[in-house]
Amino acid sequence: MPGDFVELRERMIKATKGEIREAYSNEEFILIQAINAFNETTRSYNLMYERLSEWFGIYFPEIKVGSPSVLAELATLLCSGGEVDGKEVARIIDDPQKAESICKKITETMGRKPEGDEKEAIGAFANLTKDAGKGLQGLDAYIKAATNRIMPNVTYLTDDKIAAELLAKAGSLERMATMPAGTIQLLGAEKALFKHIKFGSKPPKYGVIFKLAAVTNAQREKRGMVARAYATKIAIAVKADYFTKKFIADKLKETLDESLGKISEKKVAAKPVTQFFDRRKGGGGGRSWQQRGGKKFGRRNDRRGKGGGEETEVIRGHSRSTNP
Amino acid sequence: MPGDFVELRERMIKATKGEIREAYSNEEFILIQAINAFNETTRSYNLMYERLSEWFGIYFPEIKVGSPSVLAELATLLCSGGEVDGKEVARIIDDPQKAESICKKITETMGRKPEGDEKEAIGAFANLTKDAGKGLQGLDAYIKAATNRIMPNVTYLTDDKIAAELLAKAGSLERMATMPAGTIQLLGAEKALFKHIKFGSKPPKYGVIFKLAAVTNAQREKRGMVARAYATKIAIAVKADYFTKKFIADKLKETLDESLGKISEKKVAAKPVTQFFDRRKGGGGGRSWQQRGGKKFGRRNDRRGKGGGEETEVIRGHSRSTNP
Repeated sequence: MPGDFVELRERMIKATKGEIREAYSNEEFILIQAINAFNETTRSYNLMYERLSEWFGIYFPEIKVGSPSVLAELATLLCSGGEVDGKEVARIIDDPQKAESICKKITETMGRKPEGDEKEAIGAFANLTKDAGKGLQGLDAYIKAATNRIMPNVTYLTDDKIAAELLAKAGSLERMATMPAGTIQLLGAEKALFKHIKFGSKPPKYGVIFKLAAVTNAQREKRGMVARAYATKIAIAVKADYFTKKFIADKLKETLDESLGKISEKKVAAKPVTQFFDRRKGGGGGRSWQQRGGKKFGRRNDRRGKGGGEETEVIRGHSRSTNP
Repeated sequence: MPGDFVELRERMIKATKGEIREAYSNEEFILIQAINAFNETTRSYNLMYERLSEWFGIYFPEIKVGSPSVLAELATLLCSGGEVDGKEVARIIDDPQKAESICKKITETMGRKPEGDEKEAIGAFANLTKDAGKGLQGLDAYIKAATNRIMPNVTYLTDDKIAAELLAKAGSLERMATMPAGTIQLLGAEKALFKHIKFGSKPPKYGVIFKLAAVTNAQREKRGMVARAYATKIAIAVKADYFTKKFIADKLKETLDESLGKISEKKVAAKPVTQFFDRRKGGGGGRSWQQRGGKKFGRRNDRRGKGGGEETEVIRGHSRSTNP
């Protein structure tokens, strides 16, 4: 009877909808969105800060400001066009001596005087920069709270940003909990890994984990070991987060510190730096450190950039014989 | 006498400062900052919109919104967590029928229910997206006004964004006014031009000018001619903007339309599309159309993207014999 089919169809649709709702009931998907939004917005924020410093520099070339939020406040104040109030400047800049010297520079500036609708334009842009800073704070607070709820063990071992980024790269907590330590170690280094598999370049040693201070600050030859030690403990921690939901990170941290101590005592001969400029061999590491522009690799990155714009298409030293 | 030197030094510093102020007295430098800020912010805005749609899709997978500002408003309203007010939805969406259907979808949604501090997180991000939209409007208004003040002839021939971008690429109005038409035609296609000079790929036909609707919509074989016709007139217009400051653009537009008419009447054999996939020859055009992802070139771009992440480092077909 057709009536039965209609009813059956509706019930099945309802059941499917329920399942979909169930699948999204986990907060981790929101956390993944939040950390991605945070990373993207940070990049935009830095761009805005650079642009604003350049723009502001036309009006006040003498004033250099290190913090985006202070710069945005100053720009709104100084480019509004009226008389500059020393009190307002002092409110923005905590250091009274610095505020006074800035006030003096403002009156003697050799820069352009903001006129007409320029004020509104730079004001709009400075406001946007301020808003981006506020938006980042909001996301940051959520990421801190959510990582501590969803993956307290991993967060305790690393920090909230790295934990969230690992989760985002893995896709879900379930997938991450079933990953071996080696995979977790290389999350975020996919590009270098596939370059290794395809072209035989050196294998990457770390992905997102490189952002850990312990890895970044380790001796170059020991970074791989430190990353490995962290990855093994993170792999255990995420299993606890997903399955038992018990807090075991303090114990893990103890054993981790022990093995880190052993690694730091180990004697490793420093390798010559030159090998990192041999382009045919390719470098280790993943995208994360390339984007951060690691000190050691600075020259390689520069070289790549000069090839012709942002997307370097031809690396001439890469002869075909090594790429079968 | 040392007193004289001190006085002389101070007077010279003052004179130099005056000269620097003089050099920045031109509004064009502000316009360059504004258009760069506009372009960068547009990119950030699009990123935010994409991220927000994905995030919002977890809560309301049934609702698809085409406009970033409407999406941001809806996200703030719906993810605030309280009961959804039909009137509020109707206020955001002009079409009452659409608003009603959305209200229905909201109540029957299979998405996740926003809980706790998630609401604040997505709220912060939606607000930021809204702010970016507002900031863009402010910059846009300034760019419109400033291009009409600084370069009315060029703006009349093209439009405010393209005029400002040409100015930004040229560096200053003086430099642009002394440029030959061929250089103006290729402003923004520097990458393709140097690829042509270095590796012998096909020369680019247009840079920023490609964004003109007349060039984009022209038959593929005629685009170079249309770009050339525009570039010659822009070169004359910018000279008038910089030197005589007379408005001659209406007459220029007439002769331009005439030559465009001649070009459209010309019969040009359509070239086979396949040649565009021969990577060894290289394609024409500049960065502008590569970023816009022109339809014809879609496959080439895809291919490049698959090479291993955003920065494709090795194009294997590029054999060394053609790159001496």
